[in-house]
Amino acid sequence: MNDQILVVNCGSSSVKMAVFNRSGESLASALAEKIGQSDARLVPEGGDTVALPPNADHRQSLIAGIQWLQDNGHLGKAPLAIGHRVVHGGEAFHQAALLNNKVIRAIEDCASLAPLHNPVNLAGIEATMELFPRVPQVAVFDTAFHQTLPRHAWLYPVPKRFYNDWGVRRYGFHGTSHQYVAEEAARRLDKPAETASVISAHLGNGCSITAIRDGRSVDTSMGLTPLEGLVMGTRSGDVDPGLFDFLASKGISPEDTHGILNRESGLLGLSGTTSDMRNLLKAARNGDRDCQDAFEVFCFRLARYIGAMMVSLDNLDALVFTGGIGENSSEVRARTVAHLALPGFRIDPDSNNDHGQARNGAISASDSRFPILVIPTREEAMIARQAVALATGEADPNQSQNH
Amino acid sequence: MNDQILVVNCGSSSVKMAVFNRSGESLASALAEKIGQSDARLVPEGGDTVALPPNADHRQSLIAGIQWLQDNGHLGKAPLAIGHRVVHGGEAFHQAALLNNKVIRAIEDCASLAPLHNPVNLAGIEATMELFPRVPQVAVFDTAFHQTLPRHAWLYPVPKRFYNDWGVRRYGFHGTSHQYVAEEAARRLDKPAETASVISAHLGNGCSITAIRDGRSVDTSMGLTPLEGLVMGTRSGDVDPGLFDFLASKGISPEDTHGILNRESGLLGLSGTTSDMRNLLKAARNGDRDCQDAFEVFCFRLARYIGAMMVSLDNLDALVFTGGIGENSSEVRARTVAHLALPGFRIDPDSNNDHGQARNGAISASDSRFPILVIPTREEAMIARQAVALATGEADPNQSQNH
Repeated sequence: MNDQILVVNCGSSSVKMAVFNRSGESLASALAEKIGQSDARLVPEGGDTVALPPNADHRQSLIAGIQWLQDNGHLGKAPLAIGHRVVHGGEAFHQAALLNNKVIRAIEDCASLAPLHNPVNLAGIEATMELFPRVPQVAVFDTAFHQTLPRHAWLYPVPKRFYNDWGVRRYGFHGTSHQYVAEEAARRLDKPAETASVISAHLGNGCSITAIRDGRSVDTSMGLTPLEGLVMGTRSGDVDPGLFDFLASKGISPEDTHGILNRESGLLGLSGTTSDMRNLLKAARNGDRDCQDAFEVFCFRLARYIGAMMVSLDNLDALVFTGGIGENSSEVRARTVAHLALPGFRIDPDSNNDHGQARNGAISASDSRFPILVIPTREEAMIARQAVALATGEADPNQSQNH
Repeated sequence: MNDQILVVNCGSSSVKMAVFNRSGESLASALAEKIGQSDARLVPEGGDTVALPPNADHRQSLIAGIQWLQDNGHLGKAPLAIGHRVVHGGEAFHQAALLNNKVIRAIEDCASLAPLHNPVNLAGIEATMELFPRVPQVAVFDTAFHQTLPRHAWLYPVPKRFYNDWGVRRYGFHGTSHQYVAEEAARRLDKPAETASVISAHLGNGCSITAIRDGRSVDTSMGLTPLEGLVMGTRSGDVDPGLFDFLASKGISPEDTHGILNRESGLLGLSGTTSDMRNLLKAARNGDRDCQDAFEVFCFRLARYIGAMMVSLDNLDALVFTGGIGENSSEVRARTVAHLALPGFRIDPDSNNDHGQARNGAISASDSRFPILVIPTREEAMIARQAVALATGEADPNQSQNH
């Protein structure tokens, strides 16, 4: 019996393809990058880079990547299921969905909320449906996990017609990652996921934080779009909304401000040189004041949000760091937790320095009021798990019910 | 010896004038309102409303108000000192300043940061300088108290040239009120103000919150402008910065969005009917869902910020509620503190219902980890105190040093 699950993650200029087995083990993967550029290419995990046709689009790149996986024996004629990451499910999707025409139309309806993402996600879906017409395919939404937010957490204090007419509200993103680490934290703490309360800080290129009570998302930092909240690589996160008007008075159009806040801000904006935390920390250690500023603002604002997330919880089983920065930067974790003495968090320096490896992820000191964990995220394995559960009609034993 | 201090507070469409004695007692006051409109008028405290010349400007209104105070025996020929509220002191002013040409030029230089406020503040200063050429006059800045913010709290994660070229940073406002209640809290708790750590929630028409460590402001919710932070009467406070672009895609220009976030959002935006917390609570009790939403979002977002402010403190002597809503709405205080169980705050319902009057302002329960106080703000008395201290060359014994 075929045991393979293909996961497809179409980003704005890349397509990640990964093959899992039913146990959630990763078997192979390949990344198509620089899509739409003259040097578009396919980078297989553990293989040689292959040039893609110049200016290849998402569809062509995905087809070439799947061909490569098949040619090299990583993927059979027909996988058991295909899971697609879809960025925006709006209010229509509280959980993953088996793809059919109705679901596809609903994803199209959400495109105005994520104009850069949903259309490429749909291009990927259409391509694999043509290649594998008989394989069940599943959409797993970044927003779905956050559909349990209480009303006071998702309503913005703006005219209500904006919500009624156009769906202006907090949606939240990175839901697959937040859900995965919350469940994994519960497993490590030997608690049922449905009773675990966790604050999950996903710190990658994009960064967001979520408060999870009894397995459900109850507050999160990203909002209508993935621009709100924490400092990110090139995204500002929160700013004074008066900034648009102020910069307009200096000759910067609001359209340009929007672009600057998305692509020239965050760590890159403050450091002036890099959006990569590793490079930034190296320069900061060598005395670069701008890089030190970027590091300090990143950690302070993250700590502020951890304090804010506590408001939505009655108890806290664990603060979890995940994502590239969260998993690997002991400096970020140490500096952030240093701000959290009054709420009661204490880090253990040795455990933090080895990323919790000696203690099953734990990095908190013995006198910390709350456990602190480092848990590597596995978004694609989670997508594979949800895909196979829906495709085979078997309930996912690990998935919380959130509807 | 003349014992009177005149305080002048020029707002965008009003001028408040108040007379204090050196002990800080309020002797008289008058409010000129609807300035620039056909029905501009002067409302003296305890007197009959007087029509002002139609379309009277700030200068004419102020002169008329001072004339009224003098004609009615509330103000002598020459007060001891005059204190002016000035909204924006930029980075130039860490404390109140005796007015001279250099100071006036520095206030003019800050006008681009507060184009609606600093020019009218200056109009008031010019008018009283002509009327009372020999009386020492003092500018007291809304921003000055926050000039002690640490760098990580005032830097925005945006390109640094915005700060270097145009002063884009967090300034914070309501400084006079936050400083007053922090000092008053210290007095009530029998601590020197210089060692007191307080979270001060100023909830009036505008709302802001400040973390005060050892008598100094170390974090605050308002930013470059008074639009950032908490939900207010008509101002949104924080929103996803992606909202401007999203609404532009629906045909609402960024200029219009800016106006909507300032004048049609906050409590008014969510309720659809009122920016006044008393009316809103009445309607909410009668089952109005939109008013209930406005109340819930206001309290939740305030609680979130209280959690966030804890990050900047090593210990907390008191959480203080002040301003019209903070002093008078037991519902807002109760609902807000209900969100703060995990950080350790507990309210005493009886004390909360009588606004702490029976317990010298205290409304916390005996098992609260931190004291909670209600303290009426006295911004104008504080301005009078700072004015007389500078005008007479005597140090203000109650004022913290913050420079």
